[in-house]
Amino acid sequence: MPKISNKGAQMPESPIRKLVPYSEIAKKKGNKVYHLNIGQPDIKTPEVAIEAVKNIDIKILEYSHSAGFESYRNKLSQFYKNTGLPINPEDIIISTGGSEALLFAMGSTMDQGDEIIIPEPFYANYNGFSTASGVTVVPVISSIDTGFALPPIADFEKLITSKTKAILICNPGNPTGYLYSKEEMMQLAEIVKKHDLFLIADEVYREFTYDGDVHYSVMNIPGLEENAIMIDSVSKRYSMCGARIGCIVSKNKELMATAMKFAQARLSPPTFAQIASEAALDTPQSYFDEVISEYRERRDTLVAELNKIEGVKVANPKGAFYCIAELPIDNADTFAQWLLESYDFNGETVMVAPAAGFYSTPGVGMNQVRIAYVLQKEDLIKAVHILKEAITAYNAR
Amino acid sequence: MPKISNKGAQMPESPIRKLVPYSEIAKKKGNKVYHLNIGQPDIKTPEVAIEAVKNIDIKILEYSHSAGFESYRNKLSQFYKNTGLPINPEDIIISTGGSEALLFAMGSTMDQGDEIIIPEPFYANYNGFSTASGVTVVPVISSIDTGFALPPIADFEKLITSKTKAILICNPGNPTGYLYSKEEMMQLAEIVKKHDLFLIADEVYREFTYDGDVHYSVMNIPGLEENAIMIDSVSKRYSMCGARIGCIVSKNKELMATAMKFAQARLSPPTFAQIASEAALDTPQSYFDEVISEYRERRDTLVAELNKIEGVKVANPKGAFYCIAELPIDNADTFAQWLLESYDFNGETVMVAPAAGFYSTPGVGMNQVRIAYVLQKEDLIKAVHILKEAITAYNAR
Ligand SMILES: Cc1ncc(COP(=O)(O)O)c(C=O)c1O
Ligand SMILES: Cc1ncc(COP(=O)(O)O)c(C=O)c1O
Repeated sequence: MPKISNKGAQMPESPIRKLVPYSEIAKKKGNKVYHLNIGQPDIKTPEVAIEAVKNIDIKILEYSHSAGFESYRNKLSQFYKNTGLPINPEDIIISTGGSEALLFAMGSTMDQGDEIIIPEPFYANYNGFSTASGVTVVPVISSIDTGFALPPIADFEKLITSKTKAILICNPGNPTGYLYSKEEMMQLAEIVKKHDLFLIADEVYREFTYDGDVHYSVMNIPGLEENAIMIDSVSKRYSMCGARIGCIVSKNKELMATAMKFAQARLSPPTFAQIASEAALDTPQSYFDEVISEYRERRDTLVAELNKIEGVKVANPKGAFYCIAELPIDNADTFAQWLLESYDFNGETVMVAPAAGFYSTPGVGMNQVRIAYVLQKEDLIKAVHILKEAITAYNAR
Repeated sequence: MPKISNKGAQMPESPIRKLVPYSEIAKKKGNKVYHLNIGQPDIKTPEVAIEAVKNIDIKILEYSHSAGFESYRNKLSQFYKNTGLPINPEDIIISTGGSEALLFAMGSTMDQGDEIIIPEPFYANYNGFSTASGVTVVPVISSIDTGFALPPIADFEKLITSKTKAILICNPGNPTGYLYSKEEMMQLAEIVKKHDLFLIADEVYREFTYDGDVHYSVMNIPGLEENAIMIDSVSKRYSMCGARIGCIVSKNKELMATAMKFAQARLSPPTFAQIASEAALDTPQSYFDEVISEYRERRDTLVAELNKIEGVKVANPKGAFYCIAELPIDNADTFAQWLLESYDFNGETVMVAPAAGFYSTPGVGMNQVRIAYVLQKEDLIKAVHILKEAITAYNAR
């Protein structure tokens, strides 16, 4: 019998996927499950986007340009310029989700055995993309006690070797909700320039900031043109996760020419979704105002409720729609499974993502969970109440 | 300045892409260009597919299951069973084009430095996917003199090393148009079983066979369940290249579980395109009958016209919509460029794909071109006439 690859064996499973069989058990028992575990917003997709697809007049559904529609790249460039990002159409390659943009970025900058430094906890699929690309993730730990601020630059310095090719950050962060300040971005800029590294910034949650803080993009750092790579996506911006449209952005010509070869090999990004994404650029500002204020209220509700539970520590998120909470329990993996398999509070329970899956260092974050505030406020309140009762019951087992 | 990866530097450019600037020159001169170089059919997409997307009622465009809609996999399984392929829903992972399915197959079966044997000439992007996956392509030459039939199995045997993990075939072939017989498939089955290799069959042109020959799928080979991987796509079947929907199919559970981890990392295939692809399964047989008979006539026209040119050797294609022709010229690269840059016949010229890009062995196929019969018959006749005049003019320079 032929054998699968070592790479394939090492490909990590999603930290949430492991819990799916247990959520099935909860459902079979008739328990209602509040899903605090997912990154799929419940926000409506802008109608302009859906309407554009419904109004198409296509006879032959052809391959598009490998870099995406020219019209879309032009309009997207204008969208970025309007938000203060100096991005030209030729700095953009449209990808199949931010996911593919991350794969292009890694493939274009790193070879087998090369190293990428990532502040942890981080988006779990960075592990998958790294494994698929033969790249080694070198984590640098950020702490809940600083709200997951940028770790000291000295910590990065210590980890840089001749194999280090890039630093990858997520800003604002999934799962941390942390938003890097301009000063932190400048520190990162300095270290990548000093060591000739790429700075890959995953900015797919750019719009989601809540305290009047201004998002400072990697594309705004003066003099970083050759080092900066931005990853973007329509998934969260327009609640269009199923479209599968994102992009890789850089002013480094050699990098873009290289990413383009990866793009050409897979022919083109999806056509219907490009039509929707191009139309989505006409989404009125009022849509975002509403969405952001909804998320801000949810965040405030969630954090306030969590803080009512004794022994819970929570990093107040400044952006995105996740937060990490430290719970007074021994093991979040066991706890999350137990919540689904063995617990209910009046026929209801909650599903959370154990945070260990977002750390690359073994043994770190064992009593932390990631909570996504993608539910209505009333549901968030109920869910956190159940969590509180569950913690007591779990510890009294 | 940070450096791109070796992998990125080695990523091949498409053999056609290099000619694009020259086709721009031809157009600037006002010359009409007959595109014999492309794989984008001019056939209409079935209306059921487009209509399904126009009729959607979606409020939130969510991620789908990472393996694709369950409803689509069920219906696709039934479609395969109706055509005699014993494929169950759980044997299928929906991918973003056949392209992504090829990447999943390589990633799941091969590590850096592993080898894949591919009869050449082959679909040029196999090189790109191999480079991206860190895999070495080991070509085995098939010859125009046998119509690109399967090379003797002894030729494969000679190339197998401890690093060989898979044999990849394209059936029917792009660029050869060759359709492997049941006997050839059995020979391949025997050798992969003997050496514990995977047999990856790219069957995206399965429907396109012209002489009453029955396509013999890798999924039909008895006892090959653990070794067989099928790659499929809606791109050519329904002239839906822009959808970006394909799939990887196998009965090997470990392989599918591994491919699933790659699929989960990139979250999901595109939603609109899945809706269109699921609806396309209702395309009436009359659509295929018309398309196949149109392609058959085009093929017959093309081959007849080519055979009228002295010194041209052409392998009569049995499937797909390409053929390889050997021309009485020194170098097809130079010739193809010259056709666009310096030649016209009454204001018209042709663009062909030099075949060297489809060979991995340097220096082979230098006087061959790939011709796609994706044009109307009258245009094919005109284009081949221009080619004939051009050969004379080129050799008389
Ligand atoms: C931080 C981050 N980056 C990238 C992605 C990938 O998103 P997509 O491929 O849908 O654009 C996600 C999705 O959840 C994410 O959270
Ligand atoms: C032989 C072969 N395999 C795979 C593909 C990839 O097609 P897609 O990704 O559109 O399914 C093509 C496209 O031309 C092809 O010719």
